[in-house]
Amino acid sequence: MERVPGSVGTSAGFSLRLGQTIFSSASLLFMSLGVEFYSYTSFCYLVTIMGLVIPWSFTLALVDGYSVLVKCPVRQPGILLIIAAGDWVLSVLTLAAASSTASVVDLLLHSGGSYCPPKCCSRYQMSAAMAFLSWFLSLASALLNLWLLPSL
Amino acid sequence: MERVPGSVGTSAGFSLRLGQTIFSSASLLFMSLGVEFYSYTSFCYLVTIMGLVIPWSFTLALVDGYSVLVKCPVRQPGILLIIAAGDWVLSVLTLAAASSTASVVDLLLHSGGSYCPPKCCSRYQMSAAMAFLSWFLSLASALLNLWLLPSL
Repeated sequence: MERVPGSVGTSAGFSLRLGQTIFSSASLLFMSLGVEFYSYTSFCYLVTIMGLVIPWSFTLALVDGYSVLVKCPVRQPGILLIIAAGDWVLSVLTLAAASSTASVVDLLLHSGGSYCPPKCCSRYQMSAAMAFLSWFLSLASALLNLWLLPSL
Repeated sequence: MERVPGSVGTSAGFSLRLGQTIFSSASLLFMSLGVEFYSYTSFCYLVTIMGLVIPWSFTLALVDGYSVLVKCPVRQPGILLIIAAGDWVLSVLTLAAASSTASVVDLLLHSGGSYCPPKCCSRYQMSAAMAFLSWFLSLASALLNLWLLPSL
């Protein structure tokens, strides 16, 4: 099996997973700490998706870190297929959540300012930006894992 | 070169392209005919993206139809790479536009009803649904074309 940098069981893959975990946790924290996110559907959706992405990325970061340490990469095609499919699904969901949040924040900012105090809106914006960064890393992981699949 | 059903130059590919053209045109028409879409950023974004997707899908539908008729599929790796990359980029942009529109419509519907008359909002909803259908077909094309690339 050829080793693609950034796929499962490499140090670049470990960095990608770590970045995903950090950015999605930051997005969740910016959205949920002290802000009334539950009054908007897309903010609830973002929180739900981030609650799925964080454990997924964290688990795969642990797997990658373990693989790098013991120098024994995952080679089972079934497991790699599940990881690639999960990456794709989560990447699509993260993009949808990030763009929904960004558009709702934009609408709230330009609708006269009666809906959100400036402090809350900037936190929503940070949250959407973090979700986009998390999506970007997640797409990279998904593409690299998909690239690995035909070589199995 | 193996023939993947649904990729460039097959009759399934032609149907996919035709479906994309129809759904994205429907989304554009529902959004723009008689509705003040330019007052919301995400609606303008949807119109822009649909203006990109329609010519792209229509051109590729013509190419596929011609390939099927003359039984001479496109085989140049460079052209297939460009088509696959364009499909991916447009698929991501369409998903972002569709989810932004859907979330803004949802917010407008639940924010008290002062922003949109019921007739307009149902047209916005139809437009978002058509954009999601167009994204679904576009994702299918992108996946099938990506599947074709390693066999070149």
